[in-house]
Amino acid sequence: MPLDNPTIAIIGAGALGSYYGARLAQHGANVHFLLRSEYASVKQNGLTIKSCRGDFILPPEKINVHDDPNKMPKADLALITIKSTANDQLPRLIAPIIKEDTILLTLQNGLGNEAFLARHFGQHRVLGGIAFVCINRTAPATIDHSAHGLIRIGELTATPTPRLQKIADLMNASNIQCEILPTLMQGRWEKLLWNIPFNGLSAALDQTTDRLLASPTGIALVTHIMQDVITAAAADGITLDPALIQTNIEKTRNMGAYYTSSHIDRQQNRPLELQALFALPLQAAKNKNRPTPWLEMLYHQLTIVDAKQNP
Amino acid sequence: MPLDNPTIAIIGAGALGSYYGARLAQHGANVHFLLRSEYASVKQNGLTIKSCRGDFILPPEKINVHDDPNKMPKADLALITIKSTANDQLPRLIAPIIKEDTILLTLQNGLGNEAFLARHFGQHRVLGGIAFVCINRTAPATIDHSAHGLIRIGELTATPTPRLQKIADLMNASNIQCEILPTLMQGRWEKLLWNIPFNGLSAALDQTTDRLLASPTGIALVTHIMQDVITAAAADGITLDPALIQTNIEKTRNMGAYYTSSHIDRQQNRPLELQALFALPLQAAKNKNRPTPWLEMLYHQLTIVDAKQNP
Repeated sequence: MPLDNPTIAIIGAGALGSYYGARLAQHGANVHFLLRSEYASVKQNGLTIKSCRGDFILPPEKINVHDDPNKMPKADLALITIKSTANDQLPRLIAPIIKEDTILLTLQNGLGNEAFLARHFGQHRVLGGIAFVCINRTAPATIDHSAHGLIRIGELTATPTPRLQKIADLMNASNIQCEILPTLMQGRWEKLLWNIPFNGLSAALDQTTDRLLASPTGIALVTHIMQDVITAAAADGITLDPALIQTNIEKTRNMGAYYTSSHIDRQQNRPLELQALFALPLQAAKNKNRPTPWLEMLYHQLTIVDAKQNP
Repeated sequence: MPLDNPTIAIIGAGALGSYYGARLAQHGANVHFLLRSEYASVKQNGLTIKSCRGDFILPPEKINVHDDPNKMPKADLALITIKSTANDQLPRLIAPIIKEDTILLTLQNGLGNEAFLARHFGQHRVLGGIAFVCINRTAPATIDHSAHGLIRIGELTATPTPRLQKIADLMNASNIQCEILPTLMQGRWEKLLWNIPFNGLSAALDQTTDRLLASPTGIALVTHIMQDVITAAAADGITLDPALIQTNIEKTRNMGAYYTSSHIDRQQNRPLELQALFALPLQAAKNKNRPTPWLEMLYHQLTIVDAKQNP
């Protein structure tokens, strides 16, 4: 069984992929990193990981880095960690490393990424994962992992499988906390319940999360949007507990002046993850004619903000 | 009749008040300007007006400037031109210049300003006006009037009166285009149909007006908000022609990369005119239980943006 001693490919080794790939390599897995802008730097310096779960270094002689997927070995397991805005690159990047039983585990945000991979490479090999982690690249070839780190993984079908358990075991044996989701889409929508209001409003208004919650009108706004996300999830067959609204607001209040990834994307003139985080959730509601005006307005606003970044 | 040779007070001589006051003085009216930050500069230099209707200078010896309303003469007519966000200053500023038949004409934006003045000084003396003008202070004591200039004025009651005609005549005799509105609130709501989407979205998203109209989703967003404004106006007893939506969008497209006053307020860390332009129009809809979710969400967002400016 290839997952007993797998060859692992990290497709898009940004901060997230670099961190998890490095943890796996640190614990003996055969990991191959596909890099773009960071290739030369990591090739020369290896990876330096500063982590709340323990610092470590992967020196250059102990790391397999690549700038061309055609030079990579076939993988047993590929972690897909590029931004969903670059999904159009994936067929070209993944095709060379695929063999019959290669598993593709996407750790990307939002909806539609599993479906995209299934369309191109077959549904049987696709798994989904949700990463809860605070992570940044703070310097070339240097990753700062400041908090959390849990990954929740699931099959596209409702039933967990032995291969899912093997991957979870591999992660947990590599100092990566990993849980199995009974229903992947439940996990995706629970994360969207946070991402849509907080990533969305912070990017649209150019405000840190504390400012969104600083006034009763701000809290009402976040609440309205979350209620729309619950409506959209229901249209997609997923029931979200309304009590999660309060939980998420409290949790976010404790995060202080936090910059969401979409807010940083706006500030750094990078494309927003519009499709995965906003358009497809909205479409789920529209497919069932459920009105979600707060979500819809937010999406419209983000297209304006995003269009400016990508004229 | 005092309006035949009136003493005119300009309460809050920013760009707007300075321009119209200077035009009236240029044509022989007895105008007294109440200034704050610009007092010393105008006292020393007079006012320099660069205008699409003709440049002129009011030299220091021909201009009456004041920094204290208690030193001003009683006025026959006062033009109220301070920002509505400073309305709490008005009782103190206006009381000293009032006599029995003083008329207060507010040229402020949005809703609620006439009612505020009526509450403090009696409804009988209050008129409303709407200025359509592109005007800026470009240097100390220097006003740049780049386009338009029409003022539309009306009584709070539906019926135009002789005093309204006298003021219109005075304006028109002073190179200020002035029209009489049969219904003041019709004019207010027609201007709000533009101000609410364009001032609101430009300030919330920090985008010039051309970016709001650069995509189909942006145009749909502006249209949704305008439809909510029509709903709110109807709740307030005013019928707005839906064809005005298209007219306003076309007109705005021709304005290019325009910075609305609220957008500039955000960028310069000044308070937004939240009450007059957004909260009171929204309240009109709420009073009649008419749902206007796009307008409501915009208002909520602006409170967040504004709260940051005024912590």
